[in-house]
Amino acid sequence: MKIGRFSVDGGDPRYGVLDGDGWVVFTGDPMFQGMETTGERVDVAAAKLLAPVIPRSKVVGIARNYEGGRGASPLVYLKPNTTVIGPGDAIQLPPVGTIDHAAELVIVIGRIAKRVKAENYADVVFGYTVGNDVSARDVIEADGEMSRGKSYDSFAPLGPVIETEFDWAAADLSSAVNGEERSAGNTRDMLHSVPEIIEFVSDIFTLLPGDVIMTGSPIGRGEITAGQTVDVTVDGIGTLSNPTRDRA
Amino acid sequence: MKIGRFSVDGGDPRYGVLDGDGWVVFTGDPMFQGMETTGERVDVAAAKLLAPVIPRSKVVGIARNYEGGRGASPLVYLKPNTTVIGPGDAIQLPPVGTIDHAAELVIVIGRIAKRVKAENYADVVFGYTVGNDVSARDVIEADGEMSRGKSYDSFAPLGPVIETEFDWAAADLSSAVNGEERSAGNTRDMLHSVPEIIEFVSDIFTLLPGDVIMTGSPIGRGEITAGQTVDVTVDGIGTLSNPTRDRA
Repeated sequence: MKIGRFSVDGGDPRYGVLDGDGWVVFTGDPMFQGMETTGERVDVAAAKLLAPVIPRSKVVGIARNYEGGRGASPLVYLKPNTTVIGPGDAIQLPPVGTIDHAAELVIVIGRIAKRVKAENYADVVFGYTVGNDVSARDVIEADGEMSRGKSYDSFAPLGPVIETEFDWAAADLSSAVNGEERSAGNTRDMLHSVPEIIEFVSDIFTLLPGDVIMTGSPIGRGEITAGQTVDVTVDGIGTLSNPTRDRA
Repeated sequence: MKIGRFSVDGGDPRYGVLDGDGWVVFTGDPMFQGMETTGERVDVAAAKLLAPVIPRSKVVGIARNYEGGRGASPLVYLKPNTTVIGPGDAIQLPPVGTIDHAAELVIVIGRIAKRVKAENYADVVFGYTVGNDVSARDVIEADGEMSRGKSYDSFAPLGPVIETEFDWAAADLSSAVNGEERSAGNTRDMLHSVPEIIEFVSDIFTLLPGDVIMTGSPIGRGEITAGQTVDVTVDGIGTLSNPTRDRA
């Protein structure tokens, strides 16, 4: 099922499950308070979608997971939760040289989890969403370190929804800028799979409900500039679309 | 004044301000709910100190801030909030080669803050605490990237208290393992000062109340092994003491 977080007329964010042309509203945050619904329906047209989750702890990234050879282990980086924006929100470009987008499948964690074995990975996954892992290429090169260049505000668009029944093993994913395709791939080409990634990162740190893991992007990351629209699509979940603008 | 977070007999964490041999209890979290007190006093002897803050967003680190030349800009890394432990809690050593400790002055942010000018840095600082920036040296070398090696659970001991009236510009800081001095320095030797760091990092991301910034360590980081006690002292704040043990 597809779970969304949305606001109606600028009101408080609520969660719901998609049913035809409406959202059936949950009583609370399904990652913390379960899937009970209030019975209320909100028209899809009336709901402004928000980022489906704001992690209380970690936005984890896996670098170089589709390119080159398979490393001995996934290469981990972190983005702060202040990078997260929702569908339609502007990616704000700071004046720090070249900025890249990247199309990624994102795992949403549903349970407190530590040292999970790969074969049990599904126990800790709440669902999957789509992410655009925005990076400041020149900053990363200057620092010799990914942290700063991955961490500018608005550098982690997430959405449009969380799909709880999703086959991560063979999904097409792609990106487009102003409607023109920039990258296309399939998750079967991930060098480290979803179960392997969950085993690996949960050996480092305790995963908390709402943590997200961006699983890397196929070849075709590329520069974005102000005034564009960047779409990232994962088949079976949806398309995440964000405009770009220079930071004020 | 010295602000602590503590638990009595395993009860819920509370915050208080130190007054002689007692904590005067705050009504809530002073970083979010102000400094009103309930009037209740808790004996220092009865209060188990906890990490003075669990960041809702970021544990920021500044690498190489006392050594070598002054780089063009501070070198930023991130640790997840799941690294944070309090005074007396065990640093758990994973089986990943050499683990280092490091003595650091830590800035505690008190306000939502974005693009703060250095001269206004004090407006956004709640206070200062002591930190031990634990790192897995071999992991960082293998990855060529700091994120994973800095991010194991328990790798950010913080405490014992937050000092709100503290002169960051010339404070002695030191570390000891089993009572033997391992490092000693003074914050006047920081290559990038507290105001510069706040200007720099708040240009990258929005700082939130409770975010912490570890400001780097003087020469003398060094290996720690199981069964030791690691003390980090910043004069004017206190000594943060943690045992070490192998991860279970």
